[in-house]
Amino acid sequence: MNSFGRIFRISIFGESHGKSIGIIIDGCPPGINFTEESMLSDISRRKSGSKGTTPRNEADIPNIISGVFNGKTTGAPISIIFKNQNIRSKDYSFVKDTPRPGHADFVAEKKYKGFQDYRGGGHFSGRLTLALVAAGVLAKKIIYPLNPVAKILEVGGFSDIEKGIEYAIKHNDSIGGIVECMVSNMIPGLGEPFFDSLESYISHLVFSIPAIKGIEFGSGFSNAKMFGSQANDIFIDEKGTTATNNNGGINGGISNGNELVFRIAVKPTSSISKSQETYNFRSKQIEKLNIKGRHDLCIALRVPPVLEAVTAIALADLMLIDNG
Amino acid sequence: MNSFGRIFRISIFGESHGKSIGIIIDGCPPGINFTEESMLSDISRRKSGSKGTTPRNEADIPNIISGVFNGKTTGAPISIIFKNQNIRSKDYSFVKDTPRPGHADFVAEKKYKGFQDYRGGGHFSGRLTLALVAAGVLAKKIIYPLNPVAKILEVGGFSDIEKGIEYAIKHNDSIGGIVECMVSNMIPGLGEPFFDSLESYISHLVFSIPAIKGIEFGSGFSNAKMFGSQANDIFIDEKGTTATNNNGGINGGISNGNELVFRIAVKPTSSISKSQETYNFRSKQIEKLNIKGRHDLCIALRVPPVLEAVTAIALADLMLIDNG
Amino acid sequence: MNSFGRIFRISIFGESHGKSIGIIIDGCPPGINFTEESMLSDISRRKSGSKGTTPRNEADIPNIISGVFNGKTTGAPISIIFKNQNIRSKDYSFVKDTPRPGHADFVAEKKYKGFQDYRGGGHFSGRLTLALVAAGVLAKKIIYPLNPVAKILEVGGFSDIEKGIEYAIKHNDSIGGIVECMVSNMIPGLGEPFFDSLESYISHLVFSIPAIKGIEFGSGFSNAKMFGSQANDIFIDEKGTTATNNNGGINGGISNGNELVFRIAVKPTSSISKSQETYNFRSKQIEKLNIKGRHDLCIALRVPPVLEAVTAIALADLMLIDNG
Amino acid sequence: MNSFGRIFRISIFGESHGKSIGIIIDGCPPGINFTEESMLSDISRRKSGSKGTTPRNEADIPNIISGVFNGKTTGAPISIIFKNQNIRSKDYSFVKDTPRPGHADFVAEKKYKGFQDYRGGGHFSGRLTLALVAAGVLAKKIIYPLNPVAKILEVGGFSDIEKGIEYAIKHNDSIGGIVECMVSNMIPGLGEPFFDSLESYISHLVFSIPAIKGIEFGSGFSNAKMFGSQANDIFIDEKGTTATNNNGGINGGISNGNELVFRIAVKPTSSISKSQETYNFRSKQIEKLNIKGRHDLCIALRVPPVLEAVTAIALADLMLIDNG
Repeated sequence: MNSFGRIFRISIFGESHGKSIGIIIDGCPPGINFTEESMLSDISRRKSGSKGTTPRNEADIPNIISGVFNGKTTGAPISIIFKNQNIRSKDYSFVKDTPRPGHADFVAEKKYKGFQDYRGGGHFSGRLTLALVAAGVLAKKIIYPLNPVAKILEVGGFSDIEKGIEYAIKHNDSIGGIVECMVSNMIPGLGEPFFDSLESYISHLVFSIPAIKGIEFGSGFSNAKMFGSQANDIFIDEKGTTATNNNGGINGGISNGNELVFRIAVKPTSSISKSQETYNFRSKQIEKLNIKGRHDLCIALRVPPVLEAVTAIALADLMLIDNG
Repeated sequence: MNSFGRIFRISIFGESHGKSIGIIIDGCPPGINFTEESMLSDISRRKSGSKGTTPRNEADIPNIISGVFNGKTTGAPISIIFKNQNIRSKDYSFVKDTPRPGHADFVAEKKYKGFQDYRGGGHFSGRLTLALVAAGVLAKKIIYPLNPVAKILEVGGFSDIEKGIEYAIKHNDSIGGIVECMVSNMIPGLGEPFFDSLESYISHLVFSIPAIKGIEFGSGFSNAKMFGSQANDIFIDEKGTTATNNNGGINGGISNGNELVFRIAVKPTSSISKSQETYNFRSKQIEKLNIKGRHDLCIALRVPPVLEAVTAIALADLMLIDNG
Repeated sequence: MNSFGRIFRISIFGESHGKSIGIIIDGCPPGINFTEESMLSDISRRKSGSKGTTPRNEADIPNIISGVFNGKTTGAPISIIFKNQNIRSKDYSFVKDTPRPGHADFVAEKKYKGFQDYRGGGHFSGRLTLALVAAGVLAKKIIYPLNPVAKILEVGGFSDIEKGIEYAIKHNDSIGGIVECMVSNMIPGLGEPFFDSLESYISHLVFSIPAIKGIEFGSGFSNAKMFGSQANDIFIDEKGTTATNNNGGINGGISNGNELVFRIAVKPTSSISKSQETYNFRSKQIEKLNIKGRHDLCIALRVPPVLEAVTAIALADLMLIDNG
Repeated sequence: MNSFGRIFRISIFGESHGKSIGIIIDGCPPGINFTEESMLSDISRRKSGSKGTTPRNEADIPNIISGVFNGKTTGAPISIIFKNQNIRSKDYSFVKDTPRPGHADFVAEKKYKGFQDYRGGGHFSGRLTLALVAAGVLAKKIIYPLNPVAKILEVGGFSDIEKGIEYAIKHNDSIGGIVECMVSNMIPGLGEPFFDSLESYISHLVFSIPAIKGIEFGSGFSNAKMFGSQANDIFIDEKGTTATNNNGGINGGISNGNELVFRIAVKPTSSISKSQETYNFRSKQIEKLNIKGRHDLCIALRVPPVLEAVTAIALADLMLIDNG
């Protein structure tokens, strides 16, 4: 289902080379300041153009077409639309015969029985994360002063991001990365034991971002190698502050008021300039595949505002469930 | 919400020291063989009793009280109940003043405003995974021949599990572990791009299992250090078989028909015999806390059947959504 | 789906002649007084035994098996179970060949492909309304001081109920009726324009009660014959009180704070002592059918507490959605 | 929630005097022919312009902006948008002080705390039924050969519709009506006992249409006056054909394969040319209210295509739940 959330509920639509992409946000309380301008900062952070990102640089202008009146949310569904522009008219039909490795071409063909819009990744395109960022701006206002901030920890194994990008450029290849998100000013009580733990909610949304292959909370996989006496976070005051934060601010699936901390693994961009092989479903043999066009060397670079957005969306819904 | 699923929908209830725990399964097709006996094997695999697990050894007898007639599912909701037995009558009220580190005591007090059933972890208890295992047995029948098999990769950092347990016993401490789940005989097409990717669905349920702090699909976090040319899984035949499986059988959030592979991080059991500190909310100072009672040294040992169960539940729902 | 509600969410299960029937209530706030005793009054009102109702008089003893601790709700799912007793062991298999007119026998056979539990109506049995009444008791506490009160307006066309029953007895036939529900102390703002209008929510639940074939709000069908100048309810004070209540307390799908008023049509009990005809699917011819056993002459008599219950459930959910 | 459906799921948005209104349809199977042209016939049937309807005659041009490729659905969400044109710029702010009787002005002010877009009814406007009609066109294709056909039975109490309209014109007042919907070529098995009976599903959507105040299935309220021996529909052949259809094609909440039949009560248009009274929330006294502008004398005239649409939407979702 292209929707998520129980109270603050988002529904996403659109394809990379269709007329528009967009998102509907239902269940937003009335009276919140929200304008197209207020989205521009986060949208700009997601934009490509810096070293390591695709030169395709769309206008990315949000258009609020409902749910906002006199600059404030009304309580009715908010719809935000982005026109698709700067679409190169190249032929994408090759992906039906020779699905690109690592892409959704093959699974889309199977799932949608050949009827999918295959141009530019269609509905699977990373361009749809633009709509998530837009919804995230509103979610951030709802959860304020809770404040999700994401940053890149490493790309291609380098913690010096510049070096990682140069490494990728030098090898004419793409690279992955690790992005961390921290939420300060957390409050206790968000999330539920079954089945909507805070980890469940966040990971559900995080794995909707293309190219994410792993998530860990607090000390995550390192926890698996610790003793209980090390991993347990000792409460030290009335507010529930803990001396350590191996649990990433979550116990029993519920926020404990400490900083929320998690990291995600972003795989290397699947589209690479290097020649690859793939199976040709028409000629029925393995063939060379050369992907032309503009691609991000490292999609991880554009992930932080998207990660903040989905985190804010998850928290906004859980807060509204709890507090109305 | 204590429910999950769109068609094959489970609802869990019960507390560790209440009358019973149980689960309702709605949306199960009629005509599937299902008896109490058919659950015993997986329930037994989850049981404690071996070295490293708690000596509390409940009867764990499932009782089907609706939805099955003449040994077959009817199409009506199936309810399975487990009576709580072997409950030691010790006093748990101490957890309200001195919440146990790593446990849900503190967050439950905050979220439920002091009204939670705090005895033995209440609704947060690992005992509720018994109900997941029961529902998983039915889910496995629905997804057959898809076959989820989980195994422990390491405990406390040791791939020799026996050694890991001895290490924990020697240090009188608890240890975590890593568990892997593989699903063979997969079919392509399960999952959706937004927001119900196969990774989203599985991780949502996985993070409902107590003590899980991380999940990675395919090469997971290692993907973040690869080149795209390495990480891309090349299609090599008409069935969509790939030469490698760095994506863990999932592209664009949808199964590609290759083996589904993922790993989870299990933290060490929070209850340890060693003395710990915690904040006393009554006396308003940090105090020594000694947890008595029976505990698992390594909860990871009991996770495999639970992990298989939630995986089967996720796949069953996605299959029924797709194919009715 | 055997569930309803977004925050206050109920899940029903069980069959007439199975082990038990029951209901799970999720999303109930913690700290509400709730005991088995508190349900007995409404359960008793639903009971049979008076003239016109079936002599089958089950114990109807509720058993709370989770979600309540020290007499108060905990915030965890509340499960209430009723054991089935007093089940006559007569053979019901005849309904597979000769489905009873007006009953669900035929549709159950079609929908569940012959696997349904056909004994005593199975999951379609009116006995499941007992579980609705139990959940309604809790819902009434949540919505207090909003107060749903249902009463019978007429049975078999007689507003003198006694006369209607005697008429049915005299004709050895069953009769229907009309039941009205009014909710006093209403507040404005409950319900949503699309798609969860207050009328939508209430009618969704009302049509889950067996034998209901119509619902009308305020002046209902009479509205269709009025002029706008008659039907419009004029506001007369600051609270939004209206001079008339043709809209039954709802404008635009949302409560306006005036009394909520609606009426439902209950069809005559389908099981009658008189000989009827039906198609025999085995012999492939129309045959005489004589239904033995204990039946209500007028099921409408038992509807009021059930109607109050589903009304309270609808209002509780909408209130919790709005106010948390 | 401005969404409905479990598999075939619609989400509606927009306001009468905003930029656009629209609808997202999620869960539609791929490969169904769907174009803007295919919607024009039903959209035209809903249009105003004939005697008794408002002279406001918008272009009502649908614009599919996602989910359709090469004239066929792709399996991704389908979004359809209608630009708002022909909006008279008159001032609507009077409705905040003097809410129009029978309208949503008062409840919107209460529910949305004064932030609602009050122009032309805002999100409550009957204009949004245009989006329902659009989604209904697609739903009709999915349920084919099931064929919902709605017709007006009476307006203002006249079964001769022309006479009813003249009566309203003569009295310079608005009138209500009764609309019937029949679905031929039904199949058995659609709907569920709890809580998604076919009656529940249809009534949930029907009461989302503005101005509907009642619904009855089959013989509906007349059933309440019948004997069981009259109301029971006798099965007469192997297909489950019944000799009568007092149950309107539904037993136990599930379609029995006979024609689905139900009627709805449409109240008179709330906006009338006649002078009315209402409470002025600013001056705190009852005042005369004269509503200017273009209004339907009888909104029931425009209901049939909307009623067919929501019926098709309900059936499409239930069919997809059952059959995938």
